[in-house]
Parts: sequence; structure tokens; C-alpha cells
Amino acid sequence: MSNTRVLTGITTSGTPHLGNYAGAIRPAVAASRRPGVESFYFLADYHALIKAQDPARVQRSTLEIAAAWLACGLDPDRVWFYRQSDIPEIPELTWLLTCVAGKGILNRAHAYKAAVDRNVAEHADPDAGVTAGLFMYPVLMAADILMFRANLVPVGRDQVQHIEMARDFAARFNHLYGEHFVLPEAAIDENVATLPGLDGRKMSKSYDNTIPLFAPKAELKKLIFSIVTDSRAPGESKDTEGSALFQLYQAFATPEQTAAFAQAFADGIGWGDAKQALLEVIDGEVAPLRERYQALIADPAAIEARLREGAAKARTIATPFMRELRHAVGLRDLGAAAGAAKPEKAKKATLPTFKQYREKDGRFHFKLIAADGRELLVSEGFASPKDAGELIARLKSGELTGKATTIGRLSEGVTADDVDAALATFAD
Amino acid sequence: MSNTRVLTGITTSGTPHLGNYAGAIRPAVAASRRPGVESFYFLADYHALIKAQDPARVQRSTLEIAAAWLACGLDPDRVWFYRQSDIPEIPELTWLLTCVAGKGILNRAHAYKAAVDRNVAEHADPDAGVTAGLFMYPVLMAADILMFRANLVPVGRDQVQHIEMARDFAARFNHLYGEHFVLPEAAIDENVATLPGLDGRKMSKSYDNTIPLFAPKAELKKLIFSIVTDSRAPGESKDTEGSALFQLYQAFATPEQTAAFAQAFADGIGWGDAKQALLEVIDGEVAPLRERYQALIADPAAIEARLREGAAKARTIATPFMRELRHAVGLRDLGAAAGAAKPEKAKKATLPTFKQYREKDGRFHFKLIAADGRELLVSEGFASPKDAGELIARLKSGELTGKATTIGRLSEGVTADDVDAALATFAD
Repeated sequence: MSNTRVLTGITTSGTPHLGNYAGAIRPAVAASRRPGVESFYFLADYHALIKAQDPARVQRSTLEIAAAWLACGLDPDRVWFYRQSDIPEIPELTWLLTCVAGKGILNRAHAYKAAVDRNVAEHADPDAGVTAGLFMYPVLMAADILMFRANLVPVGRDQVQHIEMARDFAARFNHLYGEHFVLPEAAIDENVATLPGLDGRKMSKSYDNTIPLFAPKAELKKLIFSIVTDSRAPGESKDTEGSALFQLYQAFATPEQTAAFAQAFADGIGWGDAKQALLEVIDGEVAPLRERYQALIADPAAIEARLREGAAKARTIATPFMRELRHAVGLRDLGAAAGAAKPEKAKKATLPTFKQYREKDGRFHFKLIAADGRELLVSEGFASPKDAGELIARLKSGELTGKATTIGRLSEGVTADDVDAALATFAD
Repeated sequence: MSNTRVLTGITTSGTPHLGNYAGAIRPAVAASRRPGVESFYFLADYHALIKAQDPARVQRSTLEIAAAWLACGLDPDRVWFYRQSDIPEIPELTWLLTCVAGKGILNRAHAYKAAVDRNVAEHADPDAGVTAGLFMYPVLMAADILMFRANLVPVGRDQVQHIEMARDFAARFNHLYGEHFVLPEAAIDENVATLPGLDGRKMSKSYDNTIPLFAPKAELKKLIFSIVTDSRAPGESKDTEGSALFQLYQAFATPEQTAAFAQAFADGIGWGDAKQALLEVIDGEVAPLRERYQALIADPAAIEARLREGAAKARTIATPFMRELRHAVGLRDLGAAAGAAKPEKAKKATLPTFKQYREKDGRFHFKLIAADGRELLVSEGFASPKDAGELIARLKSGELTGKATTIGRLSEGVTADDVDAALATFAD
């Protein structure tokens, strides 16, 4: 049995903080060491371009995030670790998927809808300031996933929709061109550790309450000592419940240490001593990572080289798979023999069609064309395409079955039964 | 002075007919021979995937269209002749442009709007059956044009909008990342020859009234003799005005031949003789092309090799330009020194912002943040984001200037004048 492929995209923006570490990096690195799993980690820098428009910042973030993951123990020899923009097959696959993705599905993406809602609330044009990048982001993400035939994509609840879209695009492609893509599944981790920040709210760049993962110990100390606490004096019993200090400690301590810390709270440990204990437990885990990080970041060329190696390895999958996909859609070596036309054609052709057109007199008509191309019926003229469309809708609904001759003029050799038979196929 | 670059995309669908030849291939080949012009012709097979979902047909069309252009005299040694899907830089550039393209602009594209109108007329969902490919087509087209810094793009009136979009995306990119793209211009040829088809309407695949460009002479004759005429007998004078036969003749004859043919009409030439004359004039021009076409199409591997040569040549432009563009947006060698952050940042920061958020009590508030990041004002709570948005809109409009203190609570150290000054910048 082949390994389960798990794929994780890493946003290349900002500087990693303790919340990123406990919530994403540490569990992902641990997961990458499990047997039976083949892990793909990529720096999502094409995605970063949707929002980030400062090139120096994009470059710096990519370096910091790559160094952070490596420092925290991601082993590029054991996993697939690459930078998205080093894989030219990804934008190419994005276009192939663009051609099968339903626009209506993209309209319903949460991130896009949130932007529209904000505009509407401000009485602006619904798409004001919205780039095509925000709108097309789910298609790029689908290409990331489908390119490597990932089985599982660990995501938060808010990202589940994107995995469903990737499944939808993959299924459409498979339907049109044969079974090429694996349909991925979302792996939702309900127990993602959320760390509190300096002010007690969730640690997040947008709240400006973060502790940088690789802050030097002096800065780490200063930040930890600035964590908000209540005003109980040393000797007074303290609540662990709702204490940011306690939650942070728990995220870095063993269960035994945590139990002892809870006891110290009950016994009335002073806040200064508690903060010092937190500093030691965090620094105990982070100090060796920080040392590795500093060494890595001091040699950007070495990180660049590792990412290129990773890309070369990833392309051992992407390049032949893209060749297969290009052949599937018809982007082929002209010298090779053409394959047979695909069988779906026959299936599609079993539905009759309506052709709308405008006559010289300015009125709108439609023809009903049978699946085999025979003209069955020509409608009367309508004042507007909307009127013609309404009749077409009623015809498709089946409510006019048996009244074919009232619809228009039957074409030569066509009977009312022929028309009814054609219309009946819409109901199926 | 450098040459003017002219770029023409060739749709790779269908089999070329006389209308394509007279309206597109013949004038384009002639234009490619003019001095001072550098011509780019590409087979737009990524575009073809938007509609064509039969891979064997896509392959066959690409072969036929490539052979047709070569047979008609396009000289790959003199022009740039390549297949779009051989240039991986094109989908990559498509993504970079996607990130700067305003979605609102794409909403207004004619082809997309026409599809929406048809759906609305049929009471279907506006985006029913619309793929993201149709919607994003102008962005791919912009990448085709901008990749090769084309100055002129010959198009029909219906395509002018796409050139304007390419200009818009290019200008946005240049504004954000520096001057990289040439802004292309549409070259509208008002005198595009439109040939009538067998039934007198415009020759078009969709009317099923075409004469294949490379039909064997026997088939050509049969088709020409099926052209609709009036019932005037030999000896009766005929009208050249509105005669499909005459228009077709004119498209393939010298002015002298045309004048003589008009005289023959006046003198009452019989329709059979007129059709025979038309056959001879068309076959006179087409026969040598047909012979070359047959030789070319018999050796698809040779055409494939020519297209690959063309792609290698085109990539001598595309590859280094893409390297420049990647650097511009921040997709950089991490080992290289980071450039300075771009100056636009300062410019952008001159507008204050509104930050909306929800408090624990469930009510919606906003803050007014000055351009320098200082908090100026916190609003009262509103029952809905819509209500908060309405007030923001009124603030931006300037109608509440001088009433800052009625809006909410001024932040520490902020005066009503500070708020008014910030709001005044929106009016500018």
C-alpha cells in the first residue's frame, strides 16, 4: 500500500511568532516524522503576491520562514520541501484548472465574499479594490494540491471550503479528460493549539500582541514580563483558568511541570517568579532552535540551494505529471498519432439545444435543434431575448409538452411527437 | 530606432476556410513582410482549451492551422512563430497579472457579459455554465501581449476592449513595481475583408456556409457551384451589388479582372460561366498553397520541430524578461542582497483608514486610523456592519466635517481638528 500524502502550504509573509510555532510548525514537523506518511511542505510565495506588494519584504519573509521551518526540525531529506514559484508546472496547471473551474463556485468563496461584504457595507462597488488574485486564489490552491496527488490537506475550518473546491475542479477535469487527479480530503485538526498573546487575546500579528519565535533571550524576557496579569500579591492564590501566563507555560512544559505550576499558582507564587518560570520553560525549548535559526539565516545562499534541490525533487513528480495532463487536454506533440476522440462527446450530444438569434426585423427567435443536429422547430418572434428565454425555460420545465404546435413552426418533416420527445430529455 | 512589434494570436480551432484566408491569414502574411516591423504570431492553444474539450480535435486543429499559415507563406525565419503552450513563462506571467488585475474590470468584458446575459434571459444563474477560463481570458491575453512587449495588436472592434485591459494591467503593474511593461495599442483594421459564404451571409463556421481553404479542386468546384444566385437567365444583365459570387471573385482577382467581371455581369454572363470563372480565379491563387499544405500536413513531426524551434527563439525573450519580472515582484534568489523597499509605500500611507471590528457585546465599531498609524477616533457601537459602513461612507464624503465629536470618542491626545484633517484627505 502506498503512503498517504499530506500537503501543507506555508504562507511566506511576516516573521514567525510563538503562536505560529505551537499552532503550526511544531505539530507539522512532528507529523512529518510519522511512518506511512509522505509529507509535502511548500512556501506559498505565489499566494503571497496576492496581498504583499513590497518585493524586498516578500524576499525577506521567504528567507525567514524557510529558515524557521528548517531550524524547527523539518528534514528536507525526509520530506518534500520546496518553494511554489520554483515549480513552473503549478501556474500551468492553474490555467488548465481555470478552464474547468465553474465561475459560480468561485463567487461563493469565503475570502472573496468577505471582501464584497465589506465593500457593500461601505456603499462601494462590490468588487472595489478586489483583485483577480483574491478571486482566483482557490484555483491556484487546487493546483498546489492536485499537482502532487495529495490525499490529505491539514486545514483550519475556514479552509475546508477550498479543499471542497479542489475536489470539485479535480472531479470535473477527471470527468472530461479521464481519471488523472486524486480527490484530496481536508484533515481538520480540532485541537490546534491557540496561544494567547501579551494582552490575553489570541496571539496574532493583527493584534500586535505577538512574541517573535526567535527573539533573543533578553527581548523574550522583556516581552514575557510585559504579559498582562491581575494585581494579586505574592502569597495570594492565583487562578490558572483564563491566565495567559499559565496557558503559555502549558504549551511548552511537560504535564508534570504543568501540574507543579498549577500547584504553585494555588500556593500563591508571585507574578515575577511565575514569569521567570515561563521564560525558562520557553527558552529551554526555543534556545537550540534559535541558535540553528541564526546560523541558517546568516547563509541565505545555502537556503536558496536547499530550496532549489527541493524544487528539483518536487519536479520529478510535477514534470512527468504535467506531461500526462497536457496530453490529456490535447496539448500534444503534433508528430504523435492522435488518440481517438473521447467518448463523452456522444453522451453530451444526447441533449437537444436551443439556438437564439435575432432576425432582420429586430425580433428575437429561437430554434430547437435535436441532439443529432436536425432542426425541429422555429419559434415566433419575440420583442426581447428575455421573452424568448422565458418560453425556453418553460419548454425545458416540461410544462408545454403536448403543445408543440403552439410554440412555433415545426420544421419540414418534423412531427409534434418528435418535439415532445426532444423536450422530454430535459426532464431526465 | 527599434522596430515596431506587432503581435497576432491565431485561434487553434476548426479548419481554415476562405474567409479566414482573405480576412486574416493573407493580410497578416503580407504585413509580416513589411520593413520596420517585427511580427509575432502564436498558436493560441491555451485559449482554445476554454471552449475545446476534445483533445484529439485540439491536436488536429493545431496541426492544420500551423500548416495553413506556413503554406500561405509565413516565414518562421523572418517572424516569431510559436505555440503558446510551449512558453511556460506565459502561464506564470498570467498569475502575476492576475494579482494586479482588478476583478471589477473583468466583470465588464464583453464575452463574459454576453454569457451572463444569455443565462439571465433563460432565468438561469447568471454564471451558469460559465468557467473561470472564459472570465480570465483577458488576463491570459494580456500575458501573451505583455510578455513580448508588443507595440501593436491588430484586432477587430470587438477585441479593442481586451487591449485596453492589457494596458490597464500593465499600467498597474508598472505603478506598483516599476516600468517593466510596454503599453500595447490596438491596431484596428476597418477594411478587414469579410467574405460572403455559400448562402450570402458572412462566411462563418457557425453558419455552416464555409468553403474550406484547402478543399481539393473537385470539392471547391462543387461548393462554388452551390453558391446561391438569383434566377436570371444567361443574356440577362446581372447585379454585382449584393452578389456573393461577385464579392468572392473580387477578393481573389486583380482590379482589372474585377472590372472585366463587372462588365460580364452587365453583359449578361450566365451563372454557370460566372461560377466557372470564380473557380478559376480562386484555384489560381489557392492551388500552390494547397500543394504546400498537403506536403506540410503529411509530415506533422516536421511542423512540431519548427514550432519547438520557434518556442526556443521566443524564449530568448520570455525567459530573461520573466527573470526580471520575478525579481520585480520579490520572487528572488534568497542569496542575493535584498533591494530597498519600494517608495510607493510612503505614498499609499498618506490616506487614513477605517478599521471595522466587533466587540464582545456583539455590536459593530470602527476606528479611524491616521496615515501614520495613530488611532484618532473610536466609534459608538452599531447593530450591524451595514450601519457602521453607512457612517464611514458619510465620513468619507466630507458631509460630517466639523462634527467629529458626534461620531464617537476621540483617542487620547487627539483633537477634533486632527480628525477633520484626516477626513479631508479623502475628499482630495
